Amino acid sequence: MFRNCRQSLRLFHTSRIVRAQKSLTPLTSDKITNIKRSDKFKQLEHSDIDYFQTILTTNNVIHDGEANPEISSLTPYNTDFFNLHRGSSKLCLFPTETTQISKILKYCNEKKLAVVPQGGNTGVSGGQNPMFDEIIVNTSKMNKIRSFDPISGVAVADAGVVLENLDNYLAPLGYTVPLDLGAKGSCQIGGNVSTNAGGLRLMRFGNLHGNVLGLEVVLPDGTILDNLSTLRKDNTGYDLKQLFIGAEGTLGLVTGVSLLTPRKPKAVNIAMLALDSFDAVQKAFVMAKEDLSEILSAFEFWDRESMELVKRVMLQDSPYPIEAKSSFYALLETQGSRQEHDQEKIDAYLTRLMETDVAHDGVMAQDAKQTNALWQWRERIPEAIVKSGTAMTYDVAMDVQLLYKMVEDVKQHYGERGLLDTTYTNVIGFGHVGDGNLHIMANIPDHDRKAQKDMDSYVYDWAIKHNGSITAEHGIGVAKVNYMTRCKTEAQIHLMQTLKKAIDPNGIMNPYKAVPGTL
Amino acid sequence: MFRNCRQSLRLFHTSRIVRAQKSLTPLTSDKITNIKRSDKFKQLEHSDIDYFQTILTTNNVIHDGEANPEISSLTPYNTDFFNLHRGSSKLCLFPTETTQISKILKYCNEKKLAVVPQGGNTGVSGGQNPMFDEIIVNTSKMNKIRSFDPISGVAVADAGVVLENLDNYLAPLGYTVPLDLGAKGSCQIGGNVSTNAGGLRLMRFGNLHGNVLGLEVVLPDGTILDNLSTLRKDNTGYDLKQLFIGAEGTLGLVTGVSLLTPRKPKAVNIAMLALDSFDAVQKAFVMAKEDLSEILSAFEFWDRESMELVKRVMLQDSPYPIEAKSSFYALLETQGSRQEHDQEKIDAYLTRLMETDVAHDGVMAQDAKQTNALWQWRERIPEAIVKSGTAMTYDVAMDVQLLYKMVEDVKQHYGERGLLDTTYTNVIGFGHVGDGNLHIMANIPDHDRKAQKDMDSYVYDWAIKHNGSITAEHGIGVAKVNYMTRCKTEAQIHLMQTLKKAIDPNGIMNPYKAVPGTL
Repeated sequence: MFRNCRQSLRLFHTSRIVRAQKSLTPLTSDKITNIKRSDKFKQLEHSDIDYFQTILTTNNVIHDGEANPEISSLTPYNTDFFNLHRGSSKLCLFPTETTQISKILKYCNEKKLAVVPQGGNTGVSGGQNPMFDEIIVNTSKMNKIRSFDPISGVAVADAGVVLENLDNYLAPLGYTVPLDLGAKGSCQIGGNVSTNAGGLRLMRFGNLHGNVLGLEVVLPDGTILDNLSTLRKDNTGYDLKQLFIGAEGTLGLVTGVSLLTPRKPKAVNIAMLALDSFDAVQKAFVMAKEDLSEILSAFEFWDRESMELVKRVMLQDSPYPIEAKSSFYALLETQGSRQEHDQEKIDAYLTRLMETDVAHDGVMAQDAKQTNALWQWRERIPEAIVKSGTAMTYDVAMDVQLLYKMVEDVKQHYGERGLLDTTYTNVIGFGHVGDGNLHIMANIPDHDRKAQKDMDSYVYDWAIKHNGSITAEHGIGVAKVNYMTRCKTEAQIHLMQTLKKAIDPNGIMNPYKAVPGTL
Repeated sequence: MFRNCRQSLRLFHTSRIVRAQKSLTPLTSDKITNIKRSDKFKQLEHSDIDYFQTILTTNNVIHDGEANPEISSLTPYNTDFFNLHRGSSKLCLFPTETTQISKILKYCNEKKLAVVPQGGNTGVSGGQNPMFDEIIVNTSKMNKIRSFDPISGVAVADAGVVLENLDNYLAPLGYTVPLDLGAKGSCQIGGNVSTNAGGLRLMRFGNLHGNVLGLEVVLPDGTILDNLSTLRKDNTGYDLKQLFIGAEGTLGLVTGVSLLTPRKPKAVNIAMLALDSFDAVQKAFVMAKEDLSEILSAFEFWDRESMELVKRVMLQDSPYPIEAKSSFYALLETQGSRQEHDQEKIDAYLTRLMETDVAHDGVMAQDAKQTNALWQWRERIPEAIVKSGTAMTYDVAMDVQLLYKMVEDVKQHYGERGLLDTTYTNVIGFGHVGDGNLHIMANIPDHDRKAQKDMDSYVYDWAIKHNGSITAEHGIGVAKVNYMTRCKTEAQIHLMQTLKKAIDPNGIMNPYKAVPGTL
């Protein structure tokens, strides 16, 4: 039976950063030992810091030569949210204007100082953290919304605007952002663009290659590329902005974003389903595409292990929204313009789900508070794994039919070796069914490098073998750069290298990342 | 009052090529005199033709040294559909496989023979026609649909598959193509991708940068770049396919396309509105976005002059679907999953339009035949102008509020000079309101170069002055390449040149086009 969601569920802030692990992760350079610091790059000198202090005010230049990361003021920038990657930069700059970034990069390019761009530092592939001693250029203090046109729905914002802040700005104007992710309270729009972030509503609104209308980018030599078009259609020459979407800051530093935003929906509904098998998850998804069609805006799934982990670690005080102990859960969202039409479609869909025995239990949110509460069971999964110890996180894409097979195979593989629930604990699977995108996560003993390497190999090899992608929406960063030659052809790698060398001949922009063999 | 469309309207084939003009357009090289044939490129020799005949069967190599274009078998390939551009190639190749194109380009790159890729030859900017004697590589004989996955909706097709054929293939499987344009019966999916074609449903499904999942491209040196991913999400390194979408064949030759196709809608409705002013067109559009929201799939407009021209030249035997002689007409389409819901939304919208006096007359199609018939009044406008004489066609984008102001200003400008209805006849405006995309067209005396140049200047300057685009969906080709430095910054042009030189160092791919200063 479908029940309404009547419990008073706690509302959580989605973006709180959790750091429950006992110790900092080892230096990335100690983990990925085949990548060496390039001696093309100069070491930072006092004269360099003096120069940056002529561009930025003193409080926007953090220089810390402290070797002990436990007390270094740069540790929050050297390390990522998941505590998976750590560099040893001695300098973090906080520009407030594009012209400052232009001067910084021009100087770094001339002096051969390597740079790593950083936004909200929520990425999980280490793309935003230094590999060695690269200078961090953090966009957090470039956080103005430059303009919004309520007729076209086009917003132009500084790279450092936090996604949720942009959404909050748009809401009273009747618009919303076309992407939504768990990190929305911390991640920045410039970082979203540089990562080509996907998130929860990609199936409805498409990816950033379609929604970004223009970018302002500072090129490696300091040139400001003003490509901030607000036109929906513009075929004048090459579509330059596309180069920088998903390039992880290796071709330039995104400083401004022009984004097409959709209208805020008049009616939003969400339902959580309890399902007995991944086959049932797929059936429920196909039926949702048939019955809900143009109003379907998200279809997420997770397994029982995810559900129990979130309850245990994050939502101890909240009752389960669905009592039954199911193997799988799904959360679907609709966005439409007429509540009564949407409700009729949803009712017909849910009735069909029950009559065909595809789902055996479910709950629908009755108000915004319950909507937010239900979302928590999905959105807080990554935090739950981080809070539980050293986290392994993967982000793979493949045919929907294969999506959960990977989790089963991982469990079987380590089960046969006696490593499941000993070395590899909390092995969970969840993700975006609509996009064929699985997140598989696990905990391992504190910074156990061998366990990390072994699981990396197993998961990436599995994905490549099944014609999947080793990174669906999180980027290559430094975490997966060693696997690029295994999942891309020689021609693809060569063309990527050609682009990198043409646009960043000195290789100063986020070196060692995304594309191998560019130094 | 809204009436149902009961007349039995004639159904037309949308893609018939009309060539009613008396004479062939002059050679492009005689019109755009500042562009000279580069002596970097070798002249075609018999040994070259001999080589191509070792790769292709004899009937797939058309060589014609005939100087008189009236009898040359290559004229259909040297000249475009609109009879606006004409080159003087002596050789057209029709490869049937990607490996043949690889061999052709490898040879041309080594011998410094310039190449122009060509699909359905429906482009209007001359991008697909030779400027001088470039070898034409036509993809018409690469026309297989390679695969289709009915679960994900991903279709993989040869570049030469005609858009309408792909749509007809998908229809019985419950899917449709995400782009639709008047030329659908002739244009090819590879050409659509290379032009970044927009069309009638971009406002609903977004552009090809979002819908293309992967491409197979032969690079200028003959390397086959197999980038034909069928994954909806894949962030492994740079998104290489984006380079070639809208690059007009200047960076490589697209040979295969992986396309995400949406479900065929269960309910399609269209209505034609009669409106008294462009202000009313905009109001009707904003109200449509409010009331029809997620089901709105197209919102097109045209002026009375367009309507009368189509009646006079193309649809003489068809009664006007709306009797009133209005200043403007709009055609809106909805695509949804429940006819009764869509009908309710449309009824509410049309009632509001009438009650607020925004529209004064309208008609709704009652079946597929009437739907097709109503579309004809919009889709046949370009053919009508071609059939009426030497055609001027423009494709500009700007703020919706300014869209028709350009047509008024053109008329006023030439009216004040006594040239309206004498030199410049049939000045009409129509386009895609939802995308801020106007097509302004006119007829001029037979190949009157002075009139052409003058109108080019006026229209492009107007668009640039109003922060618009001089080409919204048709590309730069050769027609607008001289205007690139006026609408793009030095940094933008420089980056485009950098890309061109890095990927096509010999400049053999579609030279003289899209980006200036690359030879």
